[in-house]
Amino acid sequence: MRAYTTQMDAARKGIATPQMEAVAQKEHMPLEQLMQLVAKGQVVICANKNHTCLDPQGVGSMLRTKVNVNLGVSRDCKDYDVEMEKVMSAVRLGAEAIMDLSSHGDTQPFRQKLTRECPAMIGTVPVYDSVIHYQRDLAELTAQDFLEVIRMHAQDGVDFVTLHCGITRKTIEQIKKHKREMNIVSRGGSLVFAWMSMTGQENPFYEYFDDILEICQEYDVTISLGDACRPGCLADATDVCQIEELVRLGELTKRAWERNVQVMVEGPGHVPLNQVAANMEVQKSICMGAPFYVLGPLVTDIAPGYDHITGAIGGAVAAMSGAAFLCYVTPAEHLALPNLEDVKQGIIASKIAAHAADIAKGIPGAREIDDRMARARRKLDWEEQFACALDPDTARAIRDSRSPEDDHSDTCSMCGKFCAVRSMNKALAGEYIDIL
Amino acid sequence: MRAYTTQMDAARKGIATPQMEAVAQKEHMPLEQLMQLVAKGQVVICANKNHTCLDPQGVGSMLRTKVNVNLGVSRDCKDYDVEMEKVMSAVRLGAEAIMDLSSHGDTQPFRQKLTRECPAMIGTVPVYDSVIHYQRDLAELTAQDFLEVIRMHAQDGVDFVTLHCGITRKTIEQIKKHKREMNIVSRGGSLVFAWMSMTGQENPFYEYFDDILEICQEYDVTISLGDACRPGCLADATDVCQIEELVRLGELTKRAWERNVQVMVEGPGHVPLNQVAANMEVQKSICMGAPFYVLGPLVTDIAPGYDHITGAIGGAVAAMSGAAFLCYVTPAEHLALPNLEDVKQGIIASKIAAHAADIAKGIPGAREIDDRMARARRKLDWEEQFACALDPDTARAIRDSRSPEDDHSDTCSMCGKFCAVRSMNKALAGEYIDIL
Repeated sequence: MRAYTTQMDAARKGIATPQMEAVAQKEHMPLEQLMQLVAKGQVVICANKNHTCLDPQGVGSMLRTKVNVNLGVSRDCKDYDVEMEKVMSAVRLGAEAIMDLSSHGDTQPFRQKLTRECPAMIGTVPVYDSVIHYQRDLAELTAQDFLEVIRMHAQDGVDFVTLHCGITRKTIEQIKKHKREMNIVSRGGSLVFAWMSMTGQENPFYEYFDDILEICQEYDVTISLGDACRPGCLADATDVCQIEELVRLGELTKRAWERNVQVMVEGPGHVPLNQVAANMEVQKSICMGAPFYVLGPLVTDIAPGYDHITGAIGGAVAAMSGAAFLCYVTPAEHLALPNLEDVKQGIIASKIAAHAADIAKGIPGAREIDDRMARARRKLDWEEQFACALDPDTARAIRDSRSPEDDHSDTCSMCGKFCAVRSMNKALAGEYIDIL
Repeated sequence: MRAYTTQMDAARKGIATPQMEAVAQKEHMPLEQLMQLVAKGQVVICANKNHTCLDPQGVGSMLRTKVNVNLGVSRDCKDYDVEMEKVMSAVRLGAEAIMDLSSHGDTQPFRQKLTRECPAMIGTVPVYDSVIHYQRDLAELTAQDFLEVIRMHAQDGVDFVTLHCGITRKTIEQIKKHKREMNIVSRGGSLVFAWMSMTGQENPFYEYFDDILEICQEYDVTISLGDACRPGCLADATDVCQIEELVRLGELTKRAWERNVQVMVEGPGHVPLNQVAANMEVQKSICMGAPFYVLGPLVTDIAPGYDHITGAIGGAVAAMSGAAFLCYVTPAEHLALPNLEDVKQGIIASKIAAHAADIAKGIPGAREIDDRMARARRKLDWEEQFACALDPDTARAIRDSRSPEDDHSDTCSMCGKFCAVRSMNKALAGEYIDIL
């Protein structure tokens, strides 16, 4: 028996856990400071007791921004080994969390494989899995069924679960009255809404929140409070539905903290660029600094095929303004299940956004690699440039595919003999600069 | 003989030119207001008298953000027709300006072809072309040679020329003393620096600025004041070299305006995300609202292969904060001459950044297309979604490549039967929601 339930409980009792020590070291933060942040709920360490191969990560706005990747077995991709290879490739590309959104067959073996083999934080959305697990249609499920699935995921070692606790029966009327352009676009949120509509009952994730806290406390599962009413288009951003749900999430955060349960809060969504920073400030205030986990934000609606870019713009500004955790968005968003290349593009775009924000926030050590790259560029040292690159293989392939002119092999084909770096190096060395 | 020299001269004389009328209509702005902005120099209409096929555009922070694409004949691509096809494809993708950076052979025929056939604004960098045109090495060129090339470009109908007027002999000492990580990374800037270093003379674009103004006035060529000292890495951002040059550019802007010559000011570069807005504010103040033409800004140095994304992040925030004109960045930046696909990716990323900024700034009409997309998404009307997409072909190809399950053909394979839009449409219509 360990002397604490959750990481938050330990921090509040002044117990330094192995996970805290690992995170403090990674983040170049004094252990004492980290423990205070965990005790206050401003950093979470998503670490289920049963996820023993976990390489623990802290999530909080004063730490390095983390990136989540959604994967999982589906009707189109039901081979566990293939999907597991995608997972491990995502981890190699820098994903700190994997959300298992499996939607086909018996989902438990893959989930257990993840928590047995994958060092990244593992998250799930139990409401999806409920339909799959029981193989009963949504309206036939009971509140207890949902709770049982949460317990099963907790036992399986899942580190964080997205639960759409913040919508209630009142939301049904509000959605109808408010006439949003896109209503609810959260998958889990729409299932909860549909269940409430069909059964006439209250949201079980809201009504039985105390029972859920008990399960989460037992296994140290972090709750990621889902934002059912996150805007699905710019027109719905920062509206009454979104902000009222956020107020509910703030109340639920407080209730979870009273039971030492760790909490993240999920956020928008589709948001115009000028509203992104404001959204972060409002969340910080309403949810008392609980780590903000954002889905995008996407800063325009008109770029299907390129939403990894619209998400990188919004994600960079969100993380600079206080978001702690970015859910990746792939080029296939709004269009199709992402393939392997889409997954890669999505991760790289999110890592760029996270890194740009970490530099902007002055996260200790964040800019060192950029400074190394700058020195490599000044020296036209291509091997060192590739070593500093976020994706060395792609960078190398682009340069190699279009070789520079023979007599200027230190430059690249973009500028060739007009290379500014080459000219400056010669000029500063007092050498003659041949351009022709 | 027309009764005015430049668009600025006309605006100051209260003459409404056909170009002003066209721009006012496109921008949903009263003509009177536009004329005041042109008179003050806060909007430029780059329209050389000899570019008769021009579809005129205004550039200014209160107008729609414009995008420039760099192209041109090079040793690797010397077929005029192939390069012209690239130009027209860039215009179809939404580029409002083409900078002809041709660096091989006789550059005049292609330049003249551009101003005869291309409706986009055409820009050049005469200092590159000087070496090519005279086929003499840099140190052998005289100040008068450079002026003659500017005059030739003006006669050929070029709408704007980038001139690195802001560095002087003092800059040579400053660059040496300041020990920047990347010195000068502007190609044109490095050539001017190299020429000064080798000849011992003052920067001809600074020394003969009045003669240049005379040429620009005669043909109505807009000067794009080049930023030789733009930071080439995060470590050099917003440093003494950059800001001192900006101060020079502010002085030169005033001198140009005294002669009714239109001016844009070029800007960074590599800039940490937290410094982007500040850079825009400083430029606005120092250069009295002259339109800011930014190259990026790139918000991290470590993403070669993905600099269209780092540039889109910086560009969106820059444009939201006051930049008027974005120079595209392709995935091949820092690595190679962009190929056709790189050019396309670069344009789309820049258009996303520009559009996101226009929405954020509340440019009239900017968000209409996003709202149309939202309605199409709610109705699961895929044809209308493609019609609203920035790149319909790519969006369609992604969806078609991974078709949804047969019994849910209204959704897409990303969520399939879990589609939130489908669930919500059924729930709000009071229908039964089948998920399994």
